[in-house]
Amino acid sequence: MSKRIAGPEIERLIQLLAKVPGLGPRSARRAALHLIKKKEQLLVPLADAMGEAVDKVRICSNCGNVDTVDPCTICTDPRRDGATLIVVEDVADLWALERAGAMNALYHVLGGTLSPLDGIGPDQLNIKQLVSRVSEGEIKEIIIAVNATVEGQTTAHYLTDQLADFGVKITRLAHGVPVGGELDYLDEGTLAAALKSRTVF
Amino acid sequence: MSKRIAGPEIERLIQLLAKVPGLGPRSARRAALHLIKKKEQLLVPLADAMGEAVDKVRICSNCGNVDTVDPCTICTDPRRDGATLIVVEDVADLWALERAGAMNALYHVLGGTLSPLDGIGPDQLNIKQLVSRVSEGEIKEIIIAVNATVEGQTTAHYLTDQLADFGVKITRLAHGVPVGGELDYLDEGTLAAALKSRTVF
Repeated sequence: MSKRIAGPEIERLIQLLAKVPGLGPRSARRAALHLIKKKEQLLVPLADAMGEAVDKVRICSNCGNVDTVDPCTICTDPRRDGATLIVVEDVADLWALERAGAMNALYHVLGGTLSPLDGIGPDQLNIKQLVSRVSEGEIKEIIIAVNATVEGQTTAHYLTDQLADFGVKITRLAHGVPVGGELDYLDEGTLAAALKSRTVF
Repeated sequence: MSKRIAGPEIERLIQLLAKVPGLGPRSARRAALHLIKKKEQLLVPLADAMGEAVDKVRICSNCGNVDTVDPCTICTDPRRDGATLIVVEDVADLWALERAGAMNALYHVLGGTLSPLDGIGPDQLNIKQLVSRVSEGEIKEIIIAVNATVEGQTTAHYLTDQLADFGVKITRLAHGVPVGGELDYLDEGTLAAALKSRTVF
């Protein structure tokens, strides 16, 4: 805004909110106004929650997950199956798989994918720690649950090479038709994969 | 999430972020993760900015604007034309008009529109203070810049009645074709209004 119409504190709040993914400059103004109006119900608790996150959030030194304890809640959960390890690119993928609720396994967060052009080699990812966890001998199956992108698949191949000598089963997610998906809207690659991996009724 | 996969502090941050307009449950998770990853660049400054907003933000007792000083920056700006008062429903409308930058007037924020069914009568809006400001005699023109909705227009008529005896000029925003708008996509009411208020080239 060219003319000053509000104090610098409000402008700053808007500018910072605009950097939150999902909010742009326009929705950041709307969000700021809503927060100010709902001061006691929303702004105060949100400011507190952020302050607490600043103080308490840690990266798990074992698996790379985000939590308020280190090692994280998942790594220390005695009801988890310690023989199965799901390798993901990002904490968001871990959360997505947990919401699916299909497995009760442990995780390992790589923190990205191999991308030599961007200067991201094996040393920039959480791979050394993965190899170290696998070498302890408890893990029997590693599910490589990276994205079905070129970078994801490149990373998956690199990991399979690195982990080949430990004698563990290495698997990957199935390709196929998304549940609820319409064939007409699917790309040829997915349809071909779904045909190839067809199952008996 | 059914199983606990992260500390309660992170869950709470996600739940509160989901209440921010523009963010839903899914984008709140994405936003929380982004904030945690960009702790020093974004989470810490945003937590600070919110804390500061909690401490400093005031509602201007003169015009109803939101600011960190009372009376607000606009009300105390000596370069503003004190003879023109723009009446708006909400602070967001004030900000939108300021971004347009077409006028250098003062504002009055009603805080909503008349809506008897929702229990919002004249006493629930910032109308008494508006009448009091107009009665001081400095204001020569009142631009009623409410939304072009039924509630907005009802409120506009009520205000015109209340302010009729002060001998000030009362105007409203022009109806017409939005700048850059295509006729084909406009409703009949707007087109009829644009034809009726046509101007000479």
